[in-house]
Amino acid sequence: MTCDYTQLANNGVQQLRPYQPGKPVEELQRELGLRDVVKLASNENPLGPSHRALEAARRSLDQIHLYPDGAGFELKHALADNLGVSSDRITLGNGSNDVLELVARAYLQPGDEAVFSEYAFAIYPLVTLGCSAKPVSVDSHLYGHDLAAMADAITERTRVVFLANPNNPTGTWFNDQALDNFLARVPERVIVVLDEAYFEYVEESHYPDGLKRLDRYPNLVVTRTFSKIHGLAGLRVGYAVSHPQIADVLNRVRQPFNVNIPALAAAQAALGDLDHIENSKGENTAGLVQLAEGLDALGFTQIPSVANFIAFDCGGDAETVYQGLLREGVIVRPLGGYGLPNHLRVTAGTARDNERFLQALKQVTCR
Amino acid sequence: MTCDYTQLANNGVQQLRPYQPGKPVEELQRELGLRDVVKLASNENPLGPSHRALEAARRSLDQIHLYPDGAGFELKHALADNLGVSSDRITLGNGSNDVLELVARAYLQPGDEAVFSEYAFAIYPLVTLGCSAKPVSVDSHLYGHDLAAMADAITERTRVVFLANPNNPTGTWFNDQALDNFLARVPERVIVVLDEAYFEYVEESHYPDGLKRLDRYPNLVVTRTFSKIHGLAGLRVGYAVSHPQIADVLNRVRQPFNVNIPALAAAQAALGDLDHIENSKGENTAGLVQLAEGLDALGFTQIPSVANFIAFDCGGDAETVYQGLLREGVIVRPLGGYGLPNHLRVTAGTARDNERFLQALKQVTCR
Repeated sequence: MTCDYTQLANNGVQQLRPYQPGKPVEELQRELGLRDVVKLASNENPLGPSHRALEAARRSLDQIHLYPDGAGFELKHALADNLGVSSDRITLGNGSNDVLELVARAYLQPGDEAVFSEYAFAIYPLVTLGCSAKPVSVDSHLYGHDLAAMADAITERTRVVFLANPNNPTGTWFNDQALDNFLARVPERVIVVLDEAYFEYVEESHYPDGLKRLDRYPNLVVTRTFSKIHGLAGLRVGYAVSHPQIADVLNRVRQPFNVNIPALAAAQAALGDLDHIENSKGENTAGLVQLAEGLDALGFTQIPSVANFIAFDCGGDAETVYQGLLREGVIVRPLGGYGLPNHLRVTAGTARDNERFLQALKQVTCR
Repeated sequence: MTCDYTQLANNGVQQLRPYQPGKPVEELQRELGLRDVVKLASNENPLGPSHRALEAARRSLDQIHLYPDGAGFELKHALADNLGVSSDRITLGNGSNDVLELVARAYLQPGDEAVFSEYAFAIYPLVTLGCSAKPVSVDSHLYGHDLAAMADAITERTRVVFLANPNNPTGTWFNDQALDNFLARVPERVIVVLDEAYFEYVEESHYPDGLKRLDRYPNLVVTRTFSKIHGLAGLRVGYAVSHPQIADVLNRVRQPFNVNIPALAAAQAALGDLDHIENSKGENTAGLVQLAEGLDALGFTQIPSVANFIAFDCGGDAETVYQGLLREGVIVRPLGGYGLPNHLRVTAGTARDNERFLQALKQVTCR
């Protein structure tokens, strides 16, 4: 072989380091021979999906020899009704990861820049490098977005800005006034992606709803997901809501069958199950309180979170604590890859799982 | 609004015209108020999926609130065993469409060229334009690939060649000698994608198996799918087999959870159901004979096919015939978008569905 196929790949692709997902339960079971494993690593809904969604997925399997509806007609119309927007504003994705990538692929080329915050979701630099564009990371303020500094970082070459509200993995948020001040400073030619994956969990009164700003800011793309409060991470459904012209562009780049049959069916059913959404929110609020109080009692400094997880400072190398927790059968997420080598992120689980985590943490850290 | 968000999109993206899928059954039912609709438009398996695959998908739904295994550990190992290759050669995709796109995104940039045949699968130019690279279409020979002309079309700027064997939508194929002659002429720095979506259907003795050529040609990427003989089009699973270095690159570009939970589970189970594969092949062979004889009897000129569909010349504008068949409740695929305005493509269905198509065709064309 005379060629190096890594060197032959596009420049940005060569710099890609694959996303490190939360460790799957089966993997830990395989590696350590453990049976009773608790996973609080990927911000999944501890109540699982809506029964209606599960039933819809089950029924839909009768059709799996046929291609999905590439237009996602029924889910898009259900979403349009639910969100109070026209369906031509919607782009469906194989998870919201997919729509984030579609924006990058539609608007970023080599030489372009994409701006995001330090400690923001790892996918933003990955999709940027995937297009061989330049990732521009702006220093965080108190683990959250420094929106003024982000606006300052926009140059002639900036074509996309990624915002996360709340932010993953830190759980920070910014309010309506801060968002509006930021949007007013961004030129219309720059696409602003507002990632609201954890939108449904937030209870703060000045938390802004991105959808209400679409008419004012045609360059705004709001992304949401069925992976979090709807409990459908394993089916991969997310969506973007934007100006119809942007939606048209994203739908051209989108793979014709990017969302599969059970995913389309379950997502549509999940939208209608308001009880499950309410229960999930209640369970999460209780879980956040339990974790925050437990971490406080153990003397760990936390980053205040409005999402379904809490990041906290281990007071030293978090990898050791992470490995210790694994041996106890508890999977959380180390944040070294995010530039936070002393932090762990734990998802709010059921009361029982949270307690198990807190007990294991106490034991592993000898507190 | 001062910006045109279509004009702001990358150059190639602006030229994209979305893929036109086969018309979904529900759409025709909605539009014409028909109830009994036969779809022979998307080369789906008329026997449906393996019962084992269906059962595996059903069982897997218990886990859909969790993220899928992003590494696809179990499916990749099952595929490696099944195909007799090492698992580090495999890249899983959300349908083989996804892996075709991954190759383009890893190796094509603005200014690069990708070579494919006239009348080849519509996705090749789409994924090329999606990277703002230049699609180079080489004139077909008797509706099939003119491999000598394709080798001649390779320039310094060519980075990817797409071959389909058999080809969709024409059903043509090339033999082992022709493939080897071609591969010997391609520089190692050019990636050759050999799309074998219909591999399992072909019975010709000199039909080449791409996998057997991977050791000789490190630039070869073989793609296959669970959408055709395995009857899992609605779940979206395909894969690439390549040199490990190329697989590593593709896996960097791949979305971390591109194949969802029921898709992983069903695909793994489908691999083991040899009876279903054999039955599907038998049903297809019988269906091809029935369609070929029926079209002959009606006096239509066909393109000889080794896949699970037949393209035929309507002797005039195929769109009229297509519309007439729709009114009879039969969906086939018009090939105007492929530069074959007089041709229709019909999938080999069950004996009953094939007969229904032939009767409707006779009536619509007054033969």
